[in-house]
Amino acid sequence: MNAPFEFTISATHQRARAGIFHTPHGPIQTPIFAPVGTQATVKSLTPAQLDELGATLVLANTYHLYLRPGEALIDRLGGLHTFMQWPRPILTDSGGFQVFSLAGTRKIDEDGVTFKSHIDGSFHRLTPESSVAIQEALGADIIMAFDECAPPDDRAYNERALARTHAWAERCRLAHQRRDQALFGIVQGGVFADLRAQSAAYIASLGFPGNAIGGLSVGETKAEMHAMLETVDAILPQEKPRYLMGVGSPADLVNGVLRGVDIFDCVLPTRLARHHAAITRTGRLNLVNAIHQDDPRPILESCGCYTCQHFSRAYLRHLILAKEMLAATLLTIHNIHTLLQLMGDLRQSILEGTLEPFAAQFFADQEQTS
Amino acid sequence: MNAPFEFTISATHQRARAGIFHTPHGPIQTPIFAPVGTQATVKSLTPAQLDELGATLVLANTYHLYLRPGEALIDRLGGLHTFMQWPRPILTDSGGFQVFSLAGTRKIDEDGVTFKSHIDGSFHRLTPESSVAIQEALGADIIMAFDECAPPDDRAYNERALARTHAWAERCRLAHQRRDQALFGIVQGGVFADLRAQSAAYIASLGFPGNAIGGLSVGETKAEMHAMLETVDAILPQEKPRYLMGVGSPADLVNGVLRGVDIFDCVLPTRLARHHAAITRTGRLNLVNAIHQDDPRPILESCGCYTCQHFSRAYLRHLILAKEMLAATLLTIHNIHTLLQLMGDLRQSILEGTLEPFAAQFFADQEQTS
Repeated sequence: MNAPFEFTISATHQRARAGIFHTPHGPIQTPIFAPVGTQATVKSLTPAQLDELGATLVLANTYHLYLRPGEALIDRLGGLHTFMQWPRPILTDSGGFQVFSLAGTRKIDEDGVTFKSHIDGSFHRLTPESSVAIQEALGADIIMAFDECAPPDDRAYNERALARTHAWAERCRLAHQRRDQALFGIVQGGVFADLRAQSAAYIASLGFPGNAIGGLSVGETKAEMHAMLETVDAILPQEKPRYLMGVGSPADLVNGVLRGVDIFDCVLPTRLARHHAAITRTGRLNLVNAIHQDDPRPILESCGCYTCQHFSRAYLRHLILAKEMLAATLLTIHNIHTLLQLMGDLRQSILEGTLEPFAAQFFADQEQTS
Repeated sequence: MNAPFEFTISATHQRARAGIFHTPHGPIQTPIFAPVGTQATVKSLTPAQLDELGATLVLANTYHLYLRPGEALIDRLGGLHTFMQWPRPILTDSGGFQVFSLAGTRKIDEDGVTFKSHIDGSFHRLTPESSVAIQEALGADIIMAFDECAPPDDRAYNERALARTHAWAERCRLAHQRRDQALFGIVQGGVFADLRAQSAAYIASLGFPGNAIGGLSVGETKAEMHAMLETVDAILPQEKPRYLMGVGSPADLVNGVLRGVDIFDCVLPTRLARHHAAITRTGRLNLVNAIHQDDPRPILESCGCYTCQHFSRAYLRHLILAKEMLAATLLTIHNIHTLLQLMGDLRQSILEGTLEPFAAQFFADQEQTS
């Protein structure tokens, strides 16, 4: 029997790691991709379909659930696992990112953020303490420190925001009570290596059971993202899981794993599905295009997902043009399958010591297609 | 081995029958309710979910599929079963009802109907021959004669329409070539017993492998509907299946079975689901209502469907307010389950000779709740 939140590393390959992160709702085999269930549902899928896809960790958004239906209601109904009927591990973010990206008028002070709901315009306030309290009420296995998300290339802004993010991380740590939840700290610092290094060192010093890397995949270049990951990788403790927030294109997943990341989440597979796009390892296919009109082939001949095992591109295009909900469901199934399979292959190649040729082939295939 | 379209009656109870209708895509145990997949998809469900619900016969709409994506495309892709990946029996209607209820400006003559597409305003023409040709290209197991749908209580209109419907039924019979499809005739005649009797006798005389009753559940009273069913039941051949088109409330299903109907279809379970309503045997529950806000109970404690086995009313209401697609999926699962279970119970009670007390209890429960 493993203690909650023990992280065992089964194998490493250069910077990459294959491990198991233990949670009260079961083990998470890393590296892992977590589908996003913003409003306590991974859009267009039942939990049964998600389970069939082999999903383990699912993310839900504190900002959205706080506003609707409210964490008190979810708590009364037995917590998020019972509410959304996901019996495996759940991660909630802190609400910070959404306050800075989604909410209307906001006012930041040292104590927290006042913002306007994107739903009804009402005013709300989040602080490190209230974010933790909300996440305790929601009851996810992994919860996140409340941070400030700055534009990646504004140095002065990042310096100010970093000081606040660090102070808030410490306040979150002190506020957090539930022993059956792992609170992760978040490294910020934009695209500035010295700030990232400083942040990684500070967050690491707080001794969280896991550490996240925030504020990436928000407009910086790929080279900048990789440089920041390498900077942070060298400083964060090896023996704790690292979570790269909001990242999920196939290439970003491979690049993240190569740079020591264990956990990823992204709305990409669900959002692209609603915009009619299928993800493959080498690119995207938009099924609304007329070229698919008569095509009896699946999205990908080699794909083992329910969608590709059954449906033609012509049928998917028909569903899209007819505005049928099933289009989003079938594309979501394919897209999540694609990312979960990629993570499984990455994990396997780490365990087998073949990550290097696997990654080389992956990037060669991408090169050839682009 | 049973010949295609053999109808074997296993048991009768007064007017009600429990039978098996054999089709090239497997047997249909009657009485049966067919969920509607208007555009080659039962809205919000995968075929796997539909299969799990125990659905057998599914209906698709000729009018919609003719306009989009076109029957030629579906034919090239291997027909409707392959296109929508439903391996069990499929029924297509003739397009007649939609031309009269959905399409824009239309002009009826003895030869057929010219109408305006509800999608792009383009002009189209359907005749008995072209409706059959389209349905042959779609490739359903059961196809329908092209008929004219008149307002139920306009006697003069019904007399004119009936003459046309009868002439068209004969033309459909002559035009139909595929031996692996059963063409059903349709009895019309509004709420006029003599017209219904005349129509049933004429349609029966054409020797179709099955007979449908059209033009009901379109505004007439329940008493009128029941009277028409009784009139028709006495005339249509007992040894062939009877299909009551577009009928699907629990009470209508029980009343139909009591009056000798074997097959039903209706958009009710899928449409109500999209309007947030759950069907029960005694009524409806609209999950958007505030009374469900905190309710940890499922829609129905005694229901064995996936939705009721997992999700609270509070969660369903949250999904509805958050405009999540999963709301429609979960309510559709419950609603179709409810109707399929009711049909299963009706069939069982016919086989066991307990239909009378079953129906009495059913109506007593309805009375008590209303």
